[in-house]
Amino acid sequence: MNIVVQKYGGTSVGSVDKIKAVADKIIKKRAEGFQVVVIVSAMGKTTDELLSLAKAISDTPDPREMDMLLTTGEQVAISLLSMALISKGHSAVSFTGHQLNIQTTSLHQKARIKDISISRVIEAFEDNKIVVVAGFQGVTDNHEYTTLGRGGSDTSAVALAAKLGARCEIYTDVEGIYTMDPRKLTKARKINKISYAEMMEMASLGAGVMHYRAVEMANKYKIPLYVASTFSEEPGTIIQFEGEDSMEETVITGMASNLEDIQVTVINLPSSTGNLYRLFGQLADREVNVDMISHMITEDGKMYVSFTIPKEDLSIAEDIISNWQQEIPEIKWEINKNIAKISVVGLGMRTHSGVAAGVFKIMAENNIEIKMVTTSEIKITWVVDSCLEEKVITLIGKGFGLVTVE
Amino acid sequence: MNIVVQKYGGTSVGSVDKIKAVADKIIKKRAEGFQVVVIVSAMGKTTDELLSLAKAISDTPDPREMDMLLTTGEQVAISLLSMALISKGHSAVSFTGHQLNIQTTSLHQKARIKDISISRVIEAFEDNKIVVVAGFQGVTDNHEYTTLGRGGSDTSAVALAAKLGARCEIYTDVEGIYTMDPRKLTKARKINKISYAEMMEMASLGAGVMHYRAVEMANKYKIPLYVASTFSEEPGTIIQFEGEDSMEETVITGMASNLEDIQVTVINLPSSTGNLYRLFGQLADREVNVDMISHMITEDGKMYVSFTIPKEDLSIAEDIISNWQQEIPEIKWEINKNIAKISVVGLGMRTHSGVAAGVFKIMAENNIEIKMVTTSEIKITWVVDSCLEEKVITLIGKGFGLVTVE
Repeated sequence: MNIVVQKYGGTSVGSVDKIKAVADKIIKKRAEGFQVVVIVSAMGKTTDELLSLAKAISDTPDPREMDMLLTTGEQVAISLLSMALISKGHSAVSFTGHQLNIQTTSLHQKARIKDISISRVIEAFEDNKIVVVAGFQGVTDNHEYTTLGRGGSDTSAVALAAKLGARCEIYTDVEGIYTMDPRKLTKARKINKISYAEMMEMASLGAGVMHYRAVEMANKYKIPLYVASTFSEEPGTIIQFEGEDSMEETVITGMASNLEDIQVTVINLPSSTGNLYRLFGQLADREVNVDMISHMITEDGKMYVSFTIPKEDLSIAEDIISNWQQEIPEIKWEINKNIAKISVVGLGMRTHSGVAAGVFKIMAENNIEIKMVTTSEIKITWVVDSCLEEKVITLIGKGFGLVTVE
Repeated sequence: MNIVVQKYGGTSVGSVDKIKAVADKIIKKRAEGFQVVVIVSAMGKTTDELLSLAKAISDTPDPREMDMLLTTGEQVAISLLSMALISKGHSAVSFTGHQLNIQTTSLHQKARIKDISISRVIEAFEDNKIVVVAGFQGVTDNHEYTTLGRGGSDTSAVALAAKLGARCEIYTDVEGIYTMDPRKLTKARKINKISYAEMMEMASLGAGVMHYRAVEMANKYKIPLYVASTFSEEPGTIIQFEGEDSMEETVITGMASNLEDIQVTVINLPSSTGNLYRLFGQLADREVNVDMISHMITEDGKMYVSFTIPKEDLSIAEDIISNWQQEIPEIKWEINKNIAKISVVGLGMRTHSGVAAGVFKIMAENNIEIKMVTTSEIKITWVVDSCLEEKVITLIGKGFGLVTVE
């Protein structure tokens, strides 16, 4: 029995007509001989509407009741999609997270899937039914409703595919994974095949259409993934294991940029690993997500530590450093709010040396100051002035072949 | 521990502001020392909106998926009400029908409650929580979601009150039970106390604010019932057992009328009980709800049978009779679409003889033709021409003291 798990996002089921079109797409897959499980998100703006209702009730809505509220969004979508399938003459049945016993941890709004019971799915297959499952939701051992947070429906789909030994298709409003968000690089190229490692890096940069958690889980359980457009027949992007099949011959697979971070530089810290630990330990304790870190020790034993954090965490960082300044008055800090963080990702970096040098060359030739740089095995990230973001994207896009060739 | 079950209908929770006001009302009850369980319907027009979504998908939406869809309405309402209670500093927790294991039969959209597990309610009481429960919904043994059909939330409230040994308060958009729907009899009087028997008759006429099923269950399990307005402090109506407390000294407690039925008269049927059984048996088999029946046998052994049915069932009745006409060509039938069915209800009829005579007297004095009449122990129902409905209501209202005295 060939099983496929298809996931349709909120924009894909955003209206009655779109739901009917999705039903046709599912029926087509069924006709190809597959048993189909469909994971659906809430229709279009539903979640936003529910959130604004909650905000009108309370500035800080109770998280448990918030999940009680939000889980209705997917329940509406699965019932309507099942109705559409049935009205087109197919057997279908919908299940909520509770009905399928999608067991999660108990952290409301950020729950993680522990296990899924597939007995009802198998029963439905035996009755030749298409199975429609509410994404984004689960239940705790105590039957409390939970939601999975950002990327939740993708994660539901991958988890179910893992349990069923199925392949997983993610349908969305773009035609696959691009070398870069086409809103930022207009001629960005669609990637035909990408490795899990690259996809995870792209996802962690918020640039890969899919959420990191889902890709990580697909990688862990070796679930074949495919990302394509809901309403187009264009081939999408295959996510595969390295060496599984011939990959495209590129050094850099994709690029991402963001303007959401700020750079903080702490000056005149007494040099010690203990002080580095104190600084980043306190930031971690207060759940500040530090991304890039670089530090330098001066001749007289002082440290300069520079790091990037999300803009909204600035006040926490300032609070931590100014407390330290009470003890050691010479500690100072600088904030740079106008930064762009550019990243390039590619497995090719492992075998092609000098990718970083290639980036530096392009930057130098164009007199662009690199304010900070970090590298990992398959990723280079650097910081430039935010007003130069577009210029850098264009230069790197051309320089590393990330754009379509005319 | 004094427990009260309060039920708030859809108009009572029709907006964020109304939900906040309902929260205040619940908190007030809590402050009086009660453990409170609240049953909520879907907000305002939610159910209608969900129905129209389903209709846009399919003319005949699958009943199971319909229940999957509709149960979201109450789930939204319970989460928002719980958030409101919590944001006002009270502990509260909401439960769906599934979570509370409100076990029902498996007939979708018309399920009946079999049992309710109250262990989670008791646990919540021990944590001093206000319990908010989704009305109108339950689950089958196989964890399929069901809805209870019309009057479902009232029934949920009464059933839960029965399990908890609690009193039950029904809050709605009117101030209690009136002698008649004030839209039909402008000076209708609010009834302070009414017996279960009368309330059941009123409810079965669709005239008692509450649905028949809920009143019947309250009567069966001897649940004290109280019906009042959500947004007014005016005392409402107490429903009580006969002789439990002094009732009002009236012969007629209430009146109802409807224009929804038609009168069918079958002429020249061969006279036999077998033929009566055949006629009404076939109507019952096709789920036609026959209300009034009268028949007459002519000297030459033919029967005239007259009965009322809902307008929408006319084609079924004609189908049944015309099939019969194929066998016995002399059978004919007449349809009267312009009828008003008027009913008066009152325990006083048992002890005061001549109530029917009193009705006939008023009709006769005003030259109003009675086309059909049936009586039961505490109810008289008769049919007049629909254009006379208002006149009859006014005459009976005055004649039997159903209006407020200026």
